[in-house]
Amino acid sequence: MEFSSKLLERAVNEMSQLPGIGKRTALRLVLHMLRQPEAQTFQLADALKTMRQDIKFCKNCHNISDIDICEICSNPHRDETLICVVEDVRDVMAIENTSSFKGLYHVLGGKISPMDGIGPADLFIESLVLKVKEGGVKELIFALSPTMEGDTTNFYIYKQLQGYQVETSTIARGISVGNELEYTDEITLGRSILNRIPFESSLKS
Amino acid sequence: MEFSSKLLERAVNEMSQLPGIGKRTALRLVLHMLRQPEAQTFQLADALKTMRQDIKFCKNCHNISDIDICEICSNPHRDETLICVVEDVRDVMAIENTSSFKGLYHVLGGKISPMDGIGPADLFIESLVLKVKEGGVKELIFALSPTMEGDTTNFYIYKQLQGYQVETSTIARGISVGNELEYTDEITLGRSILNRIPFESSLKS
Repeated sequence: MEFSSKLLERAVNEMSQLPGIGKRTALRLVLHMLRQPEAQTFQLADALKTMRQDIKFCKNCHNISDIDICEICSNPHRDETLICVVEDVRDVMAIENTSSFKGLYHVLGGKISPMDGIGPADLFIESLVLKVKEGGVKELIFALSPTMEGDTTNFYIYKQLQGYQVETSTIARGISVGNELEYTDEITLGRSILNRIPFESSLKS
Repeated sequence: MEFSSKLLERAVNEMSQLPGIGKRTALRLVLHMLRQPEAQTFQLADALKTMRQDIKFCKNCHNISDIDICEICSNPHRDETLICVVEDVRDVMAIENTSSFKGLYHVLGGKISPMDGIGPADLFIESLVLKVKEGGVKELIFALSPTMEGDTTNFYIYKQLQGYQVETSTIARGISVGNELEYTDEITLGRSILNRIPFESSLKS
């Protein structure tokens, strides 16, 4: 791609560093900015800069937060003996959206993935183990993606916790509500039969 | 979408102002930035800001340029009696890539589109007409997208030029090189038969 302007080229190159944004999309976005008022681009640039500079992570759960201890961790109405282990802030948002969970979270910051060079030391696993060691945690709920990396991470943490008094559980895997049975993949369907639950308890939720 | 941080929320909101980027994609991009070194986000923000602030448009053809008269317009080897009328800088880049055109460009900055509230006054049509009035232009090549808006814009300019000595042409519409005949839409195929060219001249290109 040959550009008639170095300024344009630089902006496109920087934009195309973002995941899923190629040069063509970057050019489309940058040209859009040129058609909008100058203030809009400035606001975007400032928002990104300020965010990157000033954002904090909760010292307890590692979730993104503007304060040292996030609103969830500092909420006295939440059950601090119940901790839901998730990959990142998007999972916290998704679970919070359901209003089904009243415990605290622990954000790992990713999952163990040797292919991407991410080992246990790159994640907030140590601080989770420490929390359990210190006592006061009754149950850990593993809510990682049902992928090989997610399962590996679950198992690694589970192993680290051997010998400590803590219950561990994973979120249920089964057929999505509203999905057709025939289109469900075999592994999910197979597991959903193995992990069947009493009909009475399905009536409660 | 509920955010645990105002800084994050603001960054996501600003990003999702861009066309084709929804809140979820914006969140994904912003979280990616948080995992990258701080410098990378700063470079992006600066590149966007500087571009928006300092970018210039060629005074002759309205193409994006870092100098007052762009490299194409100031190149003495190019034929200034031949002007190719295009929508935006991407079209200039695409045509330049072919190395098939040795004339100058005139960038309209869009096309007439009443649905989007874009009229002739919002485009650089007047300066094009002025160029023709002043003489020295032998041929205008309309190279706008073959859509209703593109055709409307072509026709509007064509009408404005009535009475002036200038040839007008549009780029050929037909079957793309390498495409299967059977998958070509009817309008394109129909036009390609009406606008057939002598076999000898197809051998030359």
